Amino acid sequence: MLTKINKDKFKHVLKLNDEKTIIKIKDITIGDENPVIIAGPCAIESQQSILDIAYAVKNNNGHILRGGAFKPRTSPYDFQGLKEEGLKMLKIAGEKYNLLTITEVISISDIDLICQYVDILQIGTRNMHNFDLLREVGKRDKPVLLKRGMSATIEEWLFAAEYIMNSGNKNVILCERGIRTFETATRNTLDISAIPAIKQVSHLPIIVDPSHGSGVREYVPSLTLASIAGGADGVMLEIHKNPDEAISDSMQTINFDTFSKVCDNINLISNALKNNSFNRG
Amino acid sequence: MLTKINKDKFKHVLKLNDEKTIIKIKDITIGDENPVIIAGPCAIESQQSILDIAYAVKNNNGHILRGGAFKPRTSPYDFQGLKEEGLKMLKIAGEKYNLLTITEVISISDIDLICQYVDILQIGTRNMHNFDLLREVGKRDKPVLLKRGMSATIEEWLFAAEYIMNSGNKNVILCERGIRTFETATRNTLDISAIPAIKQVSHLPIIVDPSHGSGVREYVPSLTLASIAGGADGVMLEIHKNPDEAISDSMQTINFDTFSKVCDNINLISNALKNNSFNRG
Amino acid sequence: MLTKINKDKFKHVLKLNDEKTIIKIKDITIGDENPVIIAGPCAIESQQSILDIAYAVKNNNGHILRGGAFKPRTSPYDFQGLKEEGLKMLKIAGEKYNLLTITEVISISDIDLICQYVDILQIGTRNMHNFDLLREVGKRDKPVLLKRGMSATIEEWLFAAEYIMNSGNKNVILCERGIRTFETATRNTLDISAIPAIKQVSHLPIIVDPSHGSGVREYVPSLTLASIAGGADGVMLEIHKNPDEAISDSMQTINFDTFSKVCDNINLISNALKNNSFNRG
Amino acid sequence: MLTKINKDKFKHVLKLNDEKTIIKIKDITIGDENPVIIAGPCAIESQQSILDIAYAVKNNNGHILRGGAFKPRTSPYDFQGLKEEGLKMLKIAGEKYNLLTITEVISISDIDLICQYVDILQIGTRNMHNFDLLREVGKRDKPVLLKRGMSATIEEWLFAAEYIMNSGNKNVILCERGIRTFETATRNTLDISAIPAIKQVSHLPIIVDPSHGSGVREYVPSLTLASIAGGADGVMLEIHKNPDEAISDSMQTINFDTFSKVCDNINLISNALKNNSFNRG
Repeated sequence: MLTKINKDKFKHVLKLNDEKTIIKIKDITIGDENPVIIAGPCAIESQQSILDIAYAVKNNNGHILRGGAFKPRTSPYDFQGLKEEGLKMLKIAGEKYNLLTITEVISISDIDLICQYVDILQIGTRNMHNFDLLREVGKRDKPVLLKRGMSATIEEWLFAAEYIMNSGNKNVILCERGIRTFETATRNTLDISAIPAIKQVSHLPIIVDPSHGSGVREYVPSLTLASIAGGADGVMLEIHKNPDEAISDSMQTINFDTFSKVCDNINLISNALKNNSFNRG
Repeated sequence: MLTKINKDKFKHVLKLNDEKTIIKIKDITIGDENPVIIAGPCAIESQQSILDIAYAVKNNNGHILRGGAFKPRTSPYDFQGLKEEGLKMLKIAGEKYNLLTITEVISISDIDLICQYVDILQIGTRNMHNFDLLREVGKRDKPVLLKRGMSATIEEWLFAAEYIMNSGNKNVILCERGIRTFETATRNTLDISAIPAIKQVSHLPIIVDPSHGSGVREYVPSLTLASIAGGADGVMLEIHKNPDEAISDSMQTINFDTFSKVCDNINLISNALKNNSFNRG
Repeated sequence: MLTKINKDKFKHVLKLNDEKTIIKIKDITIGDENPVIIAGPCAIESQQSILDIAYAVKNNNGHILRGGAFKPRTSPYDFQGLKEEGLKMLKIAGEKYNLLTITEVISISDIDLICQYVDILQIGTRNMHNFDLLREVGKRDKPVLLKRGMSATIEEWLFAAEYIMNSGNKNVILCERGIRTFETATRNTLDISAIPAIKQVSHLPIIVDPSHGSGVREYVPSLTLASIAGGADGVMLEIHKNPDEAISDSMQTINFDTFSKVCDNINLISNALKNNSFNRG
Repeated sequence: MLTKINKDKFKHVLKLNDEKTIIKIKDITIGDENPVIIAGPCAIESQQSILDIAYAVKNNNGHILRGGAFKPRTSPYDFQGLKEEGLKMLKIAGEKYNLLTITEVISISDIDLICQYVDILQIGTRNMHNFDLLREVGKRDKPVLLKRGMSATIEEWLFAAEYIMNSGNKNVILCERGIRTFETATRNTLDISAIPAIKQVSHLPIIVDPSHGSGVREYVPSLTLASIAGGADGVMLEIHKNPDEAISDSMQTINFDTFSKVCDNINLISNALKNNSFNRG
């Protein structure tokens, strides 16, 4: 059980009483009773494409537009992202539809550039143990969404957050995105128990990424609702106008129609549990 | 993705269209739109104890009373269950409170005896690959709850169901109970994605066991609600009047007060999604 | 580390000093300084086929002929073995070439029959937690080769041996055969560290099955030599005259030529380390 | 099986015929028939300590002195290494005993400094997916030892090597160091099958780290010999004059006496298989 973790090794991420970190960016709050909806493409592909997606996010009362501009790819020969050009497209789409924006940082040398374009910095699963990068984003004033390493224990994940916070940045959002197991029906096994485990020991908000968490678009709606009912502070979803044509992560990307139904159901669950649940604040 | 499974190797468990297996036992149905609540102690301990628990189950509108009489234990020197004496206690408690009953079968030689006392036969995680036992329960007219092996793929689990159904018994209930991973914060990692994966390819009902699925009582409420919202046809919970005094599985057993709140929240979610969800029937 | 196991929960499998269990069957010893070579087909296919294989085993100074007659198969529709007919073929081949024989037991009701035909009973990976079957083979006077469950911890494996020994049978041979992990280049991940881990705490002999341990015939020679150098008391190999035509486990079966070279190299390593290694007796 | 990897996605790491990469640094070769022995402390602690260790390495015919100066630690509050001061101590010890030296690189900004002091750059398990760092060491003329990510598939590991080689540096040494599994008797599960798997598809040399591969010093000798017999091109061992007093990784560090016996046995196996094995060149 997580309560066995060595509390003396932490200074920032553990909670002492029942306090919660609520992160406020413009008019959006993360970590209070309303779940936050983050959605967008795996990779930013074109200005029109990201505008279409931003419209879908706004139209379903989503809050934050995601989109990758610097892509960490297993093979050096795969598409590595549109880089600054992509960041510009993301910023334009976010401003047009009054959405916050988030993108992944994979290199220290890109941080300053990225900070000019987005509201939230994302640390991806492959960099959760890149302590150098953690320290650097810890020195900035942008909130950081920290994905769990694909084979990191929950305790190691909390230590990664500790690296960021110890550098000065207290606005960390944890993001469960599935772990590596023997099961091959899914790309990763979403560790839904990370939600109550994190809530038990930390004051930080935790959101869930059911797209990477399963790798199968047909499973995303079920996992999204499970995450909200299980107490997550929000979800991050890969959406696209034509998922089959998405450059990256096509198999786990849902279309606008499915996204719309998912959002409706998130609200139904969130409202049903608002005054009664012992899971959420 | 599970749709890649070799369909020619199955005759019974896969669905062809959108049909669903709904299992009816007395006035209880499993697999329709109302989630079923199964609860009870890990091991039956005494007549009074199981009566207290049965009262709590009934009082919270639970449907089925669980209790182990033959316990598969890792060590040969651990408590192995009250055997027939326990079955009698379970039957008395079930009858008094008008609850169905379920218990685990670990030996072919016990099946006839157990069939005299309970309504549903349970195959535990350690016996999912005990093909001999699967064939034997497949010859009986009692529904079978088939737990997933702790390191079985979803495809292997479906094959185990195929063994039972191919012997004649079509009333199989699948039960996800967590898989083995590297994470040590939990006893097992609950594979919540098993719910949509099973629903995608099979007509059989699937329930979830958040008690074994986490091994941590504090996580059980969150995982239960996640399971229901994710589309499970029910849950199986370990409950006890004084969890700290339970002979077995004490760490993952919740008390009556927590159980009551969990049941309330199950209803809230179930009602909220009744007419709107695209996950459930 | 394995030294943390609860020693009070064991009565038989742990060693107190440096004693070793050496199992003697006819003129063969298992557990002393000479590694034992067990080889044969996954499934017995015909009298001629098993005779050809027995000749190859004998010709390379192998000791024990393996062959499956009752096959535990994931699908109920796959070939389930030649049963008693296969046992007869195995016995004839073993007697002709003066080899001991071993076959897998998957059902209590088959034990008496099998004991009439073979020298060693094998408990397969899917039945390591079938405590009923463990207790029954524990009542017989034939040595038992106990395979590790595919996701069993080393401690759980030792408890399974304890079940057998506590029923009276002290001649247990442990067999490491690979565990389930996320790696897909191999069917299982051979846990080579099980050798020193078992040697550290138990007096029982341990052999290794590199065929199931990898699932890839090209890797079997390397893993066999690694096992012997690592201190294993022997190996169990799947061999066939024409591996590509083997009914079962074709991908992990080596041909006679490879088997011959492997045996030569086993001897080279065994001789090189005979007087110098601190791993073996 | 690894032969299913997408060969079109690689340009450098796969072998076309039977060619092998043999890396030559001063008078040491890595990848030919003589296994290379790399040894040293987890962290460099003092000048005297690293000199004592260097003497032990040289005295047992070891080839390369390892020692950490920049330590990637799970907690930000753990000892992070002596940095440049440590590099100086390492260089002095290496020069005094005519040993090559290797140390881990965890940050792009340290590469130039480190290149002034050591012969080989090490990429640790936590940075195998740090593509930025891989590209940078790929631009230098020092050989790179690339550890497998603790949950990386063999294919992903080969892609990481591809990143380095595609930047220009062809001298890559792969290092298996154990993967994450459910087993708790060991810190990691050494994937011994990585040796034949890599040899099957790549021309690059592969060595094994049994210290991290098990996390248990008592298992290191067995795993070292298994690695050599299994075809590894060398081993990397954590050694210390007084392992119980080592600042870091104490539990998996062997003393000089054990190291000496291990080296003797490496030679026995290496010589025995020199002309006969079908595993090694």
